[in-house]
Amino acid sequence: MEKIIITGAGLAGSLLAIMMAKRGFEVAVYERRPDMRKVDISAGRSINLALSDRGIAALQKVGLDEVILSKAIPMFGRLIHPISGELDLQPYSGRSNDYINSISRGELNKILLNAAESYPNLQLRFNVRCEGMDLETGTVRFVDELTHQHFSETADVTLAADGANSAIRNEMYHHAPKLRFTFSQNYLKHGYKELYIPPNKNGGFRMDQNALHIWPRKSYMLIALPNTDGSFTATLFMAFDGEDSFEKLDNPEAITSFFEKEFPDVIPHIPDLVENFQNHPASALATIKCYPWQVNGKALLIGDAAHAVVPFYGQGMNCAFEDCLILDKLIEELGPDWNLVLNTYQMMRKADTDAIGELAEENYYEMRDHVANPVYQKKKDLDLILEQNFENFDSKYSMVTFREDLPYSVAMRKGRAQDKLLTEICQQVNNIHSLDLHAVLEQVIQLHLKG
Amino acid sequence: MEKIIITGAGLAGSLLAIMMAKRGFEVAVYERRPDMRKVDISAGRSINLALSDRGIAALQKVGLDEVILSKAIPMFGRLIHPISGELDLQPYSGRSNDYINSISRGELNKILLNAAESYPNLQLRFNVRCEGMDLETGTVRFVDELTHQHFSETADVTLAADGANSAIRNEMYHHAPKLRFTFSQNYLKHGYKELYIPPNKNGGFRMDQNALHIWPRKSYMLIALPNTDGSFTATLFMAFDGEDSFEKLDNPEAITSFFEKEFPDVIPHIPDLVENFQNHPASALATIKCYPWQVNGKALLIGDAAHAVVPFYGQGMNCAFEDCLILDKLIEELGPDWNLVLNTYQMMRKADTDAIGELAEENYYEMRDHVANPVYQKKKDLDLILEQNFENFDSKYSMVTFREDLPYSVAMRKGRAQDKLLTEICQQVNNIHSLDLHAVLEQVIQLHLKG
Ligand SMILES: Cc1cc2nc3c(=O)[nH]c(=O)nc-3n(C[C@H](O)[C@H](O)[C@H](O)COP(=O)(O)OP(=O)(O)OC[C@H]3O[C@@H](n4cnc5c(N)ncnc54)[C@H](O)[C@@H]3O)c2cc1C
Ligand SMILES: Cc1cc2nc3c(=O)[nH]c(=O)nc-3n(C[C@H](O)[C@H](O)[C@H](O)COP(=O)(O)OP(=O)(O)OC[C@H]3O[C@@H](n4cnc5c(N)ncnc54)[C@H](O)[C@@H]3O)c2cc1C
Repeated sequence: MEKIIITGAGLAGSLLAIMMAKRGFEVAVYERRPDMRKVDISAGRSINLALSDRGIAALQKVGLDEVILSKAIPMFGRLIHPISGELDLQPYSGRSNDYINSISRGELNKILLNAAESYPNLQLRFNVRCEGMDLETGTVRFVDELTHQHFSETADVTLAADGANSAIRNEMYHHAPKLRFTFSQNYLKHGYKELYIPPNKNGGFRMDQNALHIWPRKSYMLIALPNTDGSFTATLFMAFDGEDSFEKLDNPEAITSFFEKEFPDVIPHIPDLVENFQNHPASALATIKCYPWQVNGKALLIGDAAHAVVPFYGQGMNCAFEDCLILDKLIEELGPDWNLVLNTYQMMRKADTDAIGELAEENYYEMRDHVANPVYQKKKDLDLILEQNFENFDSKYSMVTFREDLPYSVAMRKGRAQDKLLTEICQQVNNIHSLDLHAVLEQVIQLHLKG
Repeated sequence: MEKIIITGAGLAGSLLAIMMAKRGFEVAVYERRPDMRKVDISAGRSINLALSDRGIAALQKVGLDEVILSKAIPMFGRLIHPISGELDLQPYSGRSNDYINSISRGELNKILLNAAESYPNLQLRFNVRCEGMDLETGTVRFVDELTHQHFSETADVTLAADGANSAIRNEMYHHAPKLRFTFSQNYLKHGYKELYIPPNKNGGFRMDQNALHIWPRKSYMLIALPNTDGSFTATLFMAFDGEDSFEKLDNPEAITSFFEKEFPDVIPHIPDLVENFQNHPASALATIKCYPWQVNGKALLIGDAAHAVVPFYGQGMNCAFEDCLILDKLIEELGPDWNLVLNTYQMMRKADTDAIGELAEENYYEMRDHVANPVYQKKKDLDLILEQNFENFDSKYSMVTFREDLPYSVAMRKGRAQDKLLTEICQQVNNIHSLDLHAVLEQVIQLHLKG
C-alpha cells in the first residue's frame, strides 16, 4: 500500500488526512503542536473564520459539512458601523440562501481530527515538528518537541500542510537555484490584533449575530464575527507604524481616546478594553506565493504552505479545503502516479490561488474604504437588485464566495470585467431604480460571452 | 573608532571596504572563498562583465577608474549575427564617447583587493564564511572553511555584500514576520552556459573585439564579450526544458546540429564545441528583491545581496558599485549614525534597484527578439540620429547606461515614455530620414516637461 506523510494537522492537513485515509492509503500525520483536544492552545491565529461554499463542498466530500455547519452562525451581510449615524446592512447576496458562516477554528479542527482518528490506516502524532526533507529520496526529518529526539520517516509522497511557515517549503527554498523555486512573500504595512467582546449579562449577543460587523475607517478598520457562546471576536487591522498605527497606541490614554473617537459604539461592549488591547499581540499579514509546489513526485505544498493570502476575502481556509478536494479528485482520476498527479495538480491550480491572493489584497481597500464611497454603494445596490431579479446573475463577491463551480481565476476575470461595466452604468444615472434591469443584464451577458 | 564588518569580498564588498577604510573606520572583511590572488578560482559566475558609467563613477571615487579601464576593452555597440546574411552593428549611442567596457571579473576583483589591502585599518580574511548574525546585538557568526572552527565578531555595523545567496539576508528571511521582511525571488525559465572562444593562432581576436556580439534567435540567444588575451567568452541563454532547451541538447549530435543550424558562423571559432558545452554547467538566473535592507542600524544588505538582477542590461555590478557610492556619500553627509544612514539609504535607493530589476527582465526579450524586428529597428535608428544631432537627447539605453546622474527609476520612467512616443512616430513614417528632427526633439522635450 502507498504510504503518505502529511505534515501539519491544521485545517488542510486534517481534512486531507481523512480524504487520503478514505482512499485506503497508509497515512501518517505529524503535527508540531500538542493535541488541541487535550490541551487548550490559543493558536495565535484568528479565533473564528468565515466558512463558505468552496470550503463546504470539500467538507461535503467527507460527509462532515452538516455537523460542522450545525456549529456555525450564518452571516447574511456586512453590518457597517459609521462613526455616527445609522447602521447599514449590506447583504452578501441578493439571494437569501447565499450566506457565509462564522465558525470557531478550534471546534472545526477538532471535528476534523476526531474524524481522522477513526481510520485504522491513519496515525496522528502530536508534538512532532517536521524539520525538512530529502527531496530526492522522500525521507522526512522530524523532531519530537517533548523528548527533543530526532528521527526520520520515508513515504511514497509527503503532503506538506504545515501552514504559512512550512518547513517543507523552506527546504525547497534552500534548493532554490536547482529547483528554480520562484518565491515571494509580501508583508502588508498593516497587521491585526484580536479583541474579545463578551456575551451580555444574559449570555446573549450584544449586537446582531447574523452579520459580519465592520467599522471602516479608511486607513484602518475593525471587524467582528459572532461566536456561538454569545461573544464576538473583533479584529483591528491597522498599520504597525506611522500616523494612526499600533505603535502610537502604546498607552491606556491613547487606546481609550482612539476608541472613543473612532469606534464609540464599541466601547460599552469591551469592558476591559485597555487590558484586552495590551495583552493581545499585533500580528503581521503576508501574501505568500511560490512555484513549483511539487518536487520529484515526492513532496507537495498544499494550503497556506503553498499560498498564504491576507484574510480580507475570508477565503484562506476555503481555498485550502478546495486544494484538498481538487487533489483528491485527481488521485481518483489518475491513480497514485504521484509525479503525474502532483504535476497536474500544480498546473491546474496555480492561477487560481494567485487570483485569490490578488483579490484578497484588493479587498482590503474595498472593506476599509470603498464601502463608504457613494458610487461603490450604488454599484453594490445594483449587484443586489440584479441578483434578486435574475437567477443567472452573480456579483463578483458571489462568484468568488458562493460559486464553487467557478475557479477563482475565472471568478476574478469575469468579476472584474463586470464590476467595471456596472460601475460605468452607475456613474451615468442618478438613481439605479430608473435602470432597465433586463437591458443591464443583457449587457452583462454580452460581456461574458465576449471574454 | 567605529568598527565595520563586511561580509563578502566580491565586487561590491571589496570596493565598499576601500571606501570605508578611506573614512578611517576599522574594517574587517570576511570572504568565503580562498584569496583569488593566490588560488585560481573559477567563480562559476560570468568571466567578463560590461562596466559602464555608474560603475566607473564609483571606481573614480576611490581613484581606481583609470587603472581598471586600462585593462578593459571598449565595446561600441551590439554586433548582430543573423543566421545568414550580413553582420549588423548597432551602436550603443550616437555619441562616440559613450561605450561600455568588457572587463575580466577576476582581474577587476584583484585590483580592488590589492587596493583594499593597502589600508592598515582594514583586515581581509579569506576562507571564512558568514553563517548569520544576531540582528539585535550585531554579533556575526562565522565558520573557518579550512579549520571548520566557528567564531563570532561584533561590530557597530555589518555591511552584507555576500551576494545573491547572502547569509545575512537569509537571517532576515528567518525573522520575516517580525521584520515584515518582504522578499521575492523570480527564476527565469531560461538559464545560461558559458563557452570559450580561444584567440586565433596568431593570438589575435577571431571577431571584431570592439563590440558585444549577439546571435538573437527569439526563444534563445548567444552573446560573446572580448577578453584582453584575444579570446571571447560566449554565453548561451536558453530554456532549461521544453522545446529548444538545454535538456534537449544532451548528446554530441544534438549539440553539433543545433549549432550548425542556429549559429553556423560560430562553429569554426569553438574548436572543441561539444566538450566545451558538456563541461560547463547551465546555471539559473533570478531576480531577487527584498525589503527592508537594514535592521536596527546593525546590518545592511548591499549589492546582489539586496537585489540580484538578471544580466540583460549589463547593470548588476554597476548597480552594486553605485550602491557603495551612494552609501559612502550618505555617511559623509550624515556621519556614522548608522540607523539614520541605513534608513535614509534604503528609502532613497529601493525604487532605483527595483527599476533596474524590471528593466533587466524586459531587456531579455528585446535582446533575443526585438533586435530583429523592423519597427524596433527604425526606432533604434531614430534614437541614434537624435543622439548624433542633439547633445540633450538620450535614448532609454543611454539614460540607464551612460547617465550616472539620473537615478535608474527616473531613467526607466522617462525612457519608457520616450520609447512609446518614438515608436508611434516611427510607425507613421516609412523612412525616418523624412522626419523633421527638431520637431521630434520638441515633442520629446514636451513629454519630459509634462512627466
Ligand atoms: C486573522 C486571520 C483571519 C482569517 N480569516 C479567515 C476566514 O474568515 N476564512 C477563511 O477561509 N480563512 C481565513 N483565514 C485563513 C486561514 O486561517 C488559513 O488559510 C488556514 O488556516 C490555512 O490552513 P492550513 O491547514 O494550510 O494552515 P494552518 O491552519 O496554519 O495549519 C498548519 C498546521 O501545521 C502545523 N505546523 C506548522 N509547522 C509545522 C512543522 N514544521 N511540522 C509539523 N507541523 C507543523 C501548525 O501547528 C498547524 O497546525 C484567516 C487567517 C488569519 C490570519
Ligand atoms: C552571467 C552573468 C553575467 C553578468 N554580466 C554583468 C555585466 O555585464 N555587467 C554588470 O554590471 N553585471 C553583470 N552581472 C551581475 C554581477 O555579476 C553582479 O551584480 C555582481 O557580481 C554583484 O556584486 P556583489 O559583490 O554584490 O556580489 P558577488 O560579486 O557575487 O560577491 C559576493 C561575494 O560574497 C562571497 N560570499 C558569499 N556568501 C558568503 C558568506 N556566507 N560569507 C562570506 N562571503 C560570502 C562570495 O564568495 C563573493 O565573493 C552578471 C551576472 C551574471 C550571472
